[in-house]
Amino acid sequence: MCDSLELSAASYHVIGDCDPSSYPLQKKFHTPEFLRSIPHIRPRSNLQGVVNRMRNTMIQSVHHTLQSNDFIQVMTPIMTSNDCEGAGELFSVALASSNQIDLNAFFNSRAFLTVSGQLQAEMMAHAMTRVYSFAPTFRAENSNTSRHLCEFWMIEPEMCFVQLPDLMDLAKKVIMDVAKNLEGKHGEDFRFLESRVDKTVPELVQTLREEKNYCHLTYTEAIDILTRKGQKFEVPVKWGIDLQSEHERYLCEKYCGNKPLFLTHYPAEIKPFYMKDSGDGKTVEAMDLLVPRVVCFGWIRSDVQGEIVGGSMREDQYDVLKRRMEEKGLLSEEVESGRSTKALDWYLDLRRYGSVPHGGWGLGLERLIETFTGVQNIRDVIPVPRVPGSCLL
Amino acid sequence: MCDSLELSAASYHVIGDCDPSSYPLQKKFHTPEFLRSIPHIRPRSNLQGVVNRMRNTMIQSVHHTLQSNDFIQVMTPIMTSNDCEGAGELFSVALASSNQIDLNAFFNSRAFLTVSGQLQAEMMAHAMTRVYSFAPTFRAENSNTSRHLCEFWMIEPEMCFVQLPDLMDLAKKVIMDVAKNLEGKHGEDFRFLESRVDKTVPELVQTLREEKNYCHLTYTEAIDILTRKGQKFEVPVKWGIDLQSEHERYLCEKYCGNKPLFLTHYPAEIKPFYMKDSGDGKTVEAMDLLVPRVVCFGWIRSDVQGEIVGGSMREDQYDVLKRRMEEKGLLSEEVESGRSTKALDWYLDLRRYGSVPHGGWGLGLERLIETFTGVQNIRDVIPVPRVPGSCLL
Repeated sequence: MCDSLELSAASYHVIGDCDPSSYPLQKKFHTPEFLRSIPHIRPRSNLQGVVNRMRNTMIQSVHHTLQSNDFIQVMTPIMTSNDCEGAGELFSVALASSNQIDLNAFFNSRAFLTVSGQLQAEMMAHAMTRVYSFAPTFRAENSNTSRHLCEFWMIEPEMCFVQLPDLMDLAKKVIMDVAKNLEGKHGEDFRFLESRVDKTVPELVQTLREEKNYCHLTYTEAIDILTRKGQKFEVPVKWGIDLQSEHERYLCEKYCGNKPLFLTHYPAEIKPFYMKDSGDGKTVEAMDLLVPRVVCFGWIRSDVQGEIVGGSMREDQYDVLKRRMEEKGLLSEEVESGRSTKALDWYLDLRRYGSVPHGGWGLGLERLIETFTGVQNIRDVIPVPRVPGSCLL
Repeated sequence: MCDSLELSAASYHVIGDCDPSSYPLQKKFHTPEFLRSIPHIRPRSNLQGVVNRMRNTMIQSVHHTLQSNDFIQVMTPIMTSNDCEGAGELFSVALASSNQIDLNAFFNSRAFLTVSGQLQAEMMAHAMTRVYSFAPTFRAENSNTSRHLCEFWMIEPEMCFVQLPDLMDLAKKVIMDVAKNLEGKHGEDFRFLESRVDKTVPELVQTLREEKNYCHLTYTEAIDILTRKGQKFEVPVKWGIDLQSEHERYLCEKYCGNKPLFLTHYPAEIKPFYMKDSGDGKTVEAMDLLVPRVVCFGWIRSDVQGEIVGGSMREDQYDVLKRRMEEKGLLSEEVESGRSTKALDWYLDLRRYGSVPHGGWGLGLERLIETFTGVQNIRDVIPVPRVPGSCLL
């Protein structure tokens, strides 16, 4: 990127010698696969330089937006005895010293790596009103796709005394500020991405920085649109289904014209127990933000970007929440005693001991970076990726 | 803390009901032990409010100082196949789904929870010049003391093209800025701490904000001082020993007069393999920052604060580092082939492929918070503490 400069040196001093013939990076194209096999040298490649600089700007931008909106950062536990949604695919923590492993030995209970800081962030929000967690999260999914990592970073704000539109407003603010901060600082990096990775990146950044571009549909409206005469999809559309990539893509790209789209009020059946009942007996006050990404070229595969923010209002009515948790077996038999930290009794306690309307969402940092760089394999936007079968360094 | 205000309401509306007779927090003194048994309610107690607000200011202050000094934040891996210093006391990552646990199954290799992001941060610094990791770290130490957590957050800057004094300057800047930012924003919180936790807190903050107060001794000078006529310690002092709390306390409090103290150039024998040889054949270019904390009262035990920053220049000479790593069995048999990510071969590669003088340090967030709040049990400065025998929530 410095081809426009020429350095005229009168003398030079070699600080650290290096044999150029054996240096792993040569002045030629290296495949992403090869670069991932030498993760300790990869940060010196030009794309990684761009990604790491922009990554840093995005992180600081998120902190800045949340802090200026009266959020304080909290650290929720990484090792946890809860498994959030009871959805499985958790890593366990064990002591390494013996071959006979007792998973309960160290803590007197099972310990898992967190899949989300949400439930504990809600606990903190009940004391501090507006909080966010910005921390690593873990999924033991055996998915070898360009969309999955076993270890990734999540930004999870939780706030009290709000309604669903406030959650969407905050998500917009965070994304718009990221777009503005990147535009102000990374002109040269964007030129690199435009010419080498995805020529539509600057256009998408422009789209994401303007509030007027954000669309909004309820799930029910979306189903209506998808079932209009003439639409054909591989997975048939009817009210109640979990939307597939092809459906989201149509809505975001075709219907909204390559604009970001909030989808809200999903069927309760397909969403987790903690989401707030909308009062219609069918849907919950959930919201997802979908971001379009279509055209790309070169060695990077075309792929749909999909959801980058997912959240909801949380069920704050004690009786309603208790019934849903009982149905899912998330409460211990002792729940009636109160103050119990067993199972998820403690989560129900947050409603027992003074409940308020509250909600929050999660934003995957690496998906945010994919969106703003156009890089479409998530392994290439984190310094040291963790995927099934590989734990280098 | 709002006793000075009176609210005159014409009407009121209960948002979330709560039975005051069963509410776990009453208008009375609760012991820290009791509060730790209800971690989901504990954030609502007044001391936790103070700690969490100040914690947030400290976190943002650290980001701000490092960012304004051209550092970028990087995420080093949490799950890792390396064990940093080979010091043991690691948690292993296992799959939770079966009772027959194969620790190699998921990644085709053992995976541990990181004890430090340092080595990978050095890797990033070799590409980006100045970086820092701000992330959770883990120790499977079976220590039930007020000084140890199994999960805590570390700030770890690494920078290239520097010398030992630059490392000390950066540490001073970070700590001084934290002191200034806290003083500017937390007057009421400090008054609470002064009256309820430790009356010396404001004085210590004043001391830490002035550059002129930071003392500096080499290890050898410290040994000279400690062995002067008339000094008596439980652990006898001679050159080569690892300094004990009683020694550090004497230096920091008595000799320097309750001032922060940098100790540098420790014996190579008692420090890890990666620290740079000072050139005298005996010591390494290490540095620790000790902070005094003595007087306290009430329910909080008197305890020495000790080291809050520890770091060093890193050995950047290929041959010297290779010899030390071989002595410790940290290299694989294949090391000669280069590009190997086995064992710690990759760390040696950072010198093989272009080496520069570089160094860094680690700052434990929770010890920083203890210092600035006067809270002396580390379990009370993190929202959800992890200690042997307890993994609540």
